[in-house]
Amino acid sequence: MTKNITVAYGDGIGPEIMDSTLEILREAKADLNFNIIEVGKNIYEKGFNSGLMPSAWEDLNNTRILLKSPITTPQGGGYKSLNVTMRKKLGLFANVRPVSSFHPFVTTKHPKMDVVIVRENEEDLYAGIEYRQSEETYECLKIVTRSGCEKIVRYAFEYAVANNRKKVSCFSKDNIMKMTDGIFHKVFDEISKEYPQIQNDHYIIDIGTARLAAKPEIFDVIVTMNLYGDIISDVVAETSGSVGLAGSANIGTDYAMFEAIHGSAPDIAGQDIANPTGLINAAVMMLVHLGQNEVASNIRNALYKTIEDGIHTGDIYNSTTSKKRVGTKEFTAAVISNLGQKPSQLAVASYSSANKKTEIKAEKTGAIATKKTLIGFDLFLDWNEEFSDLLAKLKEMESDILEVKMISAKGLLLWPLSDQHMMPTYKKGLTVLRFIGKGITGKSSNEIIDANKTISQQDIIDMLGILDKKKFDFVKYEGLYLFDGKPGYTSGQGE
Amino acid sequence: MTKNITVAYGDGIGPEIMDSTLEILREAKADLNFNIIEVGKNIYEKGFNSGLMPSAWEDLNNTRILLKSPITTPQGGGYKSLNVTMRKKLGLFANVRPVSSFHPFVTTKHPKMDVVIVRENEEDLYAGIEYRQSEETYECLKIVTRSGCEKIVRYAFEYAVANNRKKVSCFSKDNIMKMTDGIFHKVFDEISKEYPQIQNDHYIIDIGTARLAAKPEIFDVIVTMNLYGDIISDVVAETSGSVGLAGSANIGTDYAMFEAIHGSAPDIAGQDIANPTGLINAAVMMLVHLGQNEVASNIRNALYKTIEDGIHTGDIYNSTTSKKRVGTKEFTAAVISNLGQKPSQLAVASYSSANKKTEIKAEKTGAIATKKTLIGFDLFLDWNEEFSDLLAKLKEMESDILEVKMISAKGLLLWPLSDQHMMPTYKKGLTVLRFIGKGITGKSSNEIIDANKTISQQDIIDMLGILDKKKFDFVKYEGLYLFDGKPGYTSGQGE
Repeated sequence: MTKNITVAYGDGIGPEIMDSTLEILREAKADLNFNIIEVGKNIYEKGFNSGLMPSAWEDLNNTRILLKSPITTPQGGGYKSLNVTMRKKLGLFANVRPVSSFHPFVTTKHPKMDVVIVRENEEDLYAGIEYRQSEETYECLKIVTRSGCEKIVRYAFEYAVANNRKKVSCFSKDNIMKMTDGIFHKVFDEISKEYPQIQNDHYIIDIGTARLAAKPEIFDVIVTMNLYGDIISDVVAETSGSVGLAGSANIGTDYAMFEAIHGSAPDIAGQDIANPTGLINAAVMMLVHLGQNEVASNIRNALYKTIEDGIHTGDIYNSTTSKKRVGTKEFTAAVISNLGQKPSQLAVASYSSANKKTEIKAEKTGAIATKKTLIGFDLFLDWNEEFSDLLAKLKEMESDILEVKMISAKGLLLWPLSDQHMMPTYKKGLTVLRFIGKGITGKSSNEIIDANKTISQQDIIDMLGILDKKKFDFVKYEGLYLFDGKPGYTSGQGE
Repeated sequence: MTKNITVAYGDGIGPEIMDSTLEILREAKADLNFNIIEVGKNIYEKGFNSGLMPSAWEDLNNTRILLKSPITTPQGGGYKSLNVTMRKKLGLFANVRPVSSFHPFVTTKHPKMDVVIVRENEEDLYAGIEYRQSEETYECLKIVTRSGCEKIVRYAFEYAVANNRKKVSCFSKDNIMKMTDGIFHKVFDEISKEYPQIQNDHYIIDIGTARLAAKPEIFDVIVTMNLYGDIISDVVAETSGSVGLAGSANIGTDYAMFEAIHGSAPDIAGQDIANPTGLINAAVMMLVHLGQNEVASNIRNALYKTIEDGIHTGDIYNSTTSKKRVGTKEFTAAVISNLGQKPSQLAVASYSSANKKTEIKAEKTGAIATKKTLIGFDLFLDWNEEFSDLLAKLKEMESDILEVKMISAKGLLLWPLSDQHMMPTYKKGLTVLRFIGKGITGKSSNEIIDANKTISQQDIIDMLGILDKKKFDFVKYEGLYLFDGKPGYTSGQGE
């Protein structure tokens, strides 16, 4: 049965490269119906803050497959990135970006590059939850869940199995963010044990990105968190020779979206010079996803043959291997005329023989249910007097139940100090008081001496009431919990 | 007068490369006294959680200058990274990493690389403030202040002026993090206007990192936030040929710390094979900082001459330009024997003539004082029933003053939806209720219809009391403020 897919033309160069891609799909006899929806800039400006109209969502709910051109999020005005919103609304938890170099036909310093970035797509700082807390201070929340980590890490290993890949590398910054990046790394270590046939290793994101930029050939599949994945997928795309070449899949349990990885490039829009290769590669990934493997192979082979023939758009044109500089339309015509042919030096695609779809496994509850107990809270004060004035008020902040165990600012311990030499320069503004139930912790706030004691929410509320009466200006609090008796919070630096 | 400096040997290869560096400093007649302090692994294990003993802080308070080898932060056990702690306690707000390639003597794909990364050092996610909020969810706070942005951006421009640099580029991700990264970009735009003689531009961090990895020669000075700076300084170091080559300065108003950018490499420690070039380059930066420019030039020229002569440690050894593979000690001896000589192809240093120290300007209050008014709060619930059950309870959550205007999870709008097709899959767990004072906002929570109305902290406390009695499990709240009538919070995605 002919498959209906939803098609979004997007902004900037979007319409041109989509025309090119759909024409190739038609000529290659892909068994598809195209339902065109409107997305992007115009829709934002009509007042749809998400960049998509209800009718478009409805079409998507029917087809479950979206082929999408890049869009422009208007600057300012509180518009949310449609890409981010769509990925989240559709539960597209995995962003998959295979990038390989077209050496020697496209200039690259990395002829052996052949990596796949599997990026977590729903969590991390990209939830965009931000608060201005004072004159001076802004906060963004980085949110990571264990089940989010499990889903993406498992997908990366399943992808490696399905695509005959040898190794999965994990990138995180868990030496600094021991809890959020820590759980990502921990889950990776757990799940990698279930795939003994696949090698695995871990890199701290800074050195990992550096290695990837210098020697991409040492990597195979990389799984990482949202922000890091955003950065490293652009690094591999750019160092492959051009960001115009790679496509990507956004995979969820129910939906999938396919797009080029580049932006809408409004500066070159409408000039018939954009390179449609990224979107064509995305369409090939879509065909494989739909099981139309023969058409997928046919299109990819024609595309690679065209590039091999030196028929190049301006972004990849070079004096050594290019034969003809062409526009979008002429490039499209060349690909169509090459349908049925194969590249002779670049890798030949044959998706029919390697036909395995990556499985999306049901989530396991990797963690055994833990016991959560409330033992205190961090109060974020907007303090604009001297630090000594705050210390002088500490006595007023004690109840029968709670006491201040620590004061910090930007994570740095201010009080109590074992040595006054260690006092950082105090800057007025956001200052954090750590209240903990009396008798629960020892010398430092993460040394638990009585894990059976707890406090109640009402105890926090009572203390907030006391502080409010004394005219303290507080902007937020964070509850402090033990999980199975272990602290669910970091200690102050220097504590 | 002979300058006292504090010297820390560190862990892993630290002692070897420090011995090498101090020997060269002595032989070059640097006018320095070395006060040796103990830092790192041993000190952590003696129970000093910050990695430094009080006596060491005292020495530092006298000298104000630290030359430091890499250290190892023990895994687990709640140890804080000494590097991070020290940078913060000493107010070292700027991390400065000049990286240039040693082409053709050290193999690199980027022969024209000559960039300086100026990285903000005190803020961002590296405050390490983290909370586990539920069975599933972990949170890390990204904290950015306007004055922190001003200090680092101004330093970058002053550095450019003092070192005859042409351009300063800003890297941020303000298309996603419109408030935290937004203020960084905004401050950059403001301050760049004060330096019309220096060119400036801005890159989104993903594409910026990609360009930097592919074509570092298009960049000059780059100023960026802590995490991004961490990643890109490793990228430039690695793609320059080896992470063993670059030194860095950590600059504060009162203190300065100089170190190699690489880690402690415990796997090759004690074998006399480590490359001391990074720490020697750091020592050269220190000498310039102290005004000992002639000695600085002399050491750097001898170092470059040694590399030019093909006297290479294993990390940079190559069959084309290396003449002799040497260990740490033999390399050191070669540098000493080259004192007084200059490289013939690599750039010759002459710090005496270009002697300008980068000025650290007093912070300006860039922002005019704003009026902060409290209008509501976001309550983070740990909700483990169906979403419909939560909706059914909404009526119980209203007071005379406050009402729920929005419900979201991971930043995504769940309620109210203009179109039910847009409902994301709801996953039990952390769910955010946005309470706003009645009559303050319109249809969406960021549309302000009455900026003169406010609520009080007591109103929040009262509502928390109501919700507590109804057995809601809440883990935190974030205050919602207007600043001069404008929302200091992001809207829900899709709102």
